Amino acid sequence: MNNFTFYSPTYFVFGRKTENEAGHYVKRFGGSKVLIHYGGGSAIRSRLLDRVKASLEKENIEFIELGGVKPNPRSGLVYEGIDLCRKENVDFILAVGGGSVIDSAKAIAAGVKYEGDFWDFYEGKPVTEALPVGTILTIAAAGSEGSGDSVITKEEGMLKRGAGGEALRPVFSILNPELTQTLPAYQTACGATDIMAHVFERYFTNTKEVEITDRLCEAVLLTMIKEVPRVIKDPNNYEARANIMWAGMVAHNNLVGVGREQDWSSHGIEHELSALYDVAHGAGLAVVFPAWMTYVMKHDINRFAQIAVRVWGCEMNFANPEETAKEGIERFKQFLTSIGMPITFKELGAKEEDIPLMVEKLGLGENGTMGSFVPLRAKDVEQIYRLAL
Amino acid sequence: MNNFTFYSPTYFVFGRKTENEAGHYVKRFGGSKVLIHYGGGSAIRSRLLDRVKASLEKENIEFIELGGVKPNPRSGLVYEGIDLCRKENVDFILAVGGGSVIDSAKAIAAGVKYEGDFWDFYEGKPVTEALPVGTILTIAAAGSEGSGDSVITKEEGMLKRGAGGEALRPVFSILNPELTQTLPAYQTACGATDIMAHVFERYFTNTKEVEITDRLCEAVLLTMIKEVPRVIKDPNNYEARANIMWAGMVAHNNLVGVGREQDWSSHGIEHELSALYDVAHGAGLAVVFPAWMTYVMKHDINRFAQIAVRVWGCEMNFANPEETAKEGIERFKQFLTSIGMPITFKELGAKEEDIPLMVEKLGLGENGTMGSFVPLRAKDVEQIYRLAL
Repeated sequence: MNNFTFYSPTYFVFGRKTENEAGHYVKRFGGSKVLIHYGGGSAIRSRLLDRVKASLEKENIEFIELGGVKPNPRSGLVYEGIDLCRKENVDFILAVGGGSVIDSAKAIAAGVKYEGDFWDFYEGKPVTEALPVGTILTIAAAGSEGSGDSVITKEEGMLKRGAGGEALRPVFSILNPELTQTLPAYQTACGATDIMAHVFERYFTNTKEVEITDRLCEAVLLTMIKEVPRVIKDPNNYEARANIMWAGMVAHNNLVGVGREQDWSSHGIEHELSALYDVAHGAGLAVVFPAWMTYVMKHDINRFAQIAVRVWGCEMNFANPEETAKEGIERFKQFLTSIGMPITFKELGAKEEDIPLMVEKLGLGENGTMGSFVPLRAKDVEQIYRLAL
Repeated sequence: MNNFTFYSPTYFVFGRKTENEAGHYVKRFGGSKVLIHYGGGSAIRSRLLDRVKASLEKENIEFIELGGVKPNPRSGLVYEGIDLCRKENVDFILAVGGGSVIDSAKAIAAGVKYEGDFWDFYEGKPVTEALPVGTILTIAAAGSEGSGDSVITKEEGMLKRGAGGEALRPVFSILNPELTQTLPAYQTACGATDIMAHVFERYFTNTKEVEITDRLCEAVLLTMIKEVPRVIKDPNNYEARANIMWAGMVAHNNLVGVGREQDWSSHGIEHELSALYDVAHGAGLAVVFPAWMTYVMKHDINRFAQIAVRVWGCEMNFANPEETAKEGIERFKQFLTSIGMPITFKELGAKEEDIPLMVEKLGLGENGTMGSFVPLRAKDVEQIYRLAL
């Protein structure tokens, strides 16, 4: 196990009707003038925003609003938010939505406290100061409600980049599984795939002797394998929604990834798919991950056999562990198909002829690599895309 | 799943040589005048205290010392610590030791900020304010490094009571597995049993549909089952020590217990054994827990079969699940024996004739109960003690 630090100071409030406590928690964490940040119409139609506002009013907390966050949130709205917060002396940002809304809120929070261009943080400058951010989560997926990360896309050149820093951890996050019950099956499945991908990126590691985090990773995956099919069948299953929602936080606040080398290349490989075809991140991951696994499997057959046995319930083939490893990947693909996810370029609507362009956009050049479990060069990524045809 | 809140704001610093960063973290969390609180001579003999002091000096942080914490820490030393902190204007307490030292430090931290008698907190008053506490952990066991709890024994009547509150969560905890390598096998095994007991008290619940926390509980137990025998065999196995140390934190910061009813009766039943015979808490738990499990098993055969299959690797007996449940308990007992723990009164040195006294001291009276999985009356507790003969 490697040395590490772990810091997850977010106050989590979980369960039915908890959005009505938003005002209480904003006050507790020092907010007196709030920017409510949200996406499209669903928060309005469901009257969620009304309930949140009523909760703030009850505590005599002033607020202004900024909606319009899109999936793959854009820098343009972030600049607008920063200006608005400064003009209105906002001291707290309340994100009401999913990962995109929360990531946009984090970007605004960091930008308000910074004299330079907020984009500097997305070019690698660590975020050390930000306005406090609270969240009311509406989809289990990105894990941004418990993480210190934010991903924003800059319109010029459509650059999708991440920022990070302890100051970006939300001060509180309200997780009410009821709010996810209205999500369509496809979005639910995309979110679930993203959650599982957050675990995989940590699970496939070259760090030895990490039994506790291996087992915690497997705990999240086993939960997803049980609960996701239940919500696909019955979107109103509160209990299954609750288990998935908490699993989504655990999958990405880094508790399951501390002390081990992580590999985020599949997320990178997927980003080019999302960028080119505007497909959901989770759907892209469903296509990329089985192909990546197949391509890198031989690097550590035992690790792939381990996940096959412990997570996918395969019998260990002691005479031929590679067969077990392959069977695990096969079961993962069957699982994805069963919850309505695409697993090929064809199902996703991606085109073989675009592969060279996507590889090029990754910017690896002749000798650059991505990932750590198996460092991948451009030619490797090309083969991974081809395995997904 | 029940509604819950979860708040674990401790900054964890994990790995080799991390005690040398103590000064850095004291400074970061606002300490300028520190009380170093510790137990007996091992922290001195190992030169751990010297390294900690050097680290504080490097940051120009003043400090004073108070040693002498005993297992089952006493209120007398807490009063002394409170007086000392007030006299010397201490603004930060650094606990160097195991659960007893940390619990004593937490009691002092709460007492300094409180005008009344600190014991009020151990009579049920929630702790809402305390001096910041940092910890340098020297044994994986109690989980106090990540929890908001503290247990202190009052000399008058030897009352052992717990206090709780968010203000008692350490601001930082330094976990260096190297510091645990010098522990004797028996103490290591006692600590491991305590860790597993913290999971069991959460696992056996009447709350339905808690797959994510079930799985996280199982992850910790599976890790212990793999790693503990390795350190008993080879105390210098850093990697196994590391996995156990992090598992010990995860077992008790309540991540694995949120959203579900918990049952702490085995801890209560054990306290009387420790109090009467001055045996280690972990050893007492090794005697009490299998007996408690045997006694309550029929309340939920499926849950006991689940742990038998998922944790103890039993084959499910579909024709007779009770046999599977029993086999799980049997394997737990074998595991305890294999790591050198007692599992009977006889091995522990406890006496059958003291059972009525211990039952009486629990103070349940005629109709009182303890625990929630199966609420236990005095006559039930008596039978549990007898099952452990």
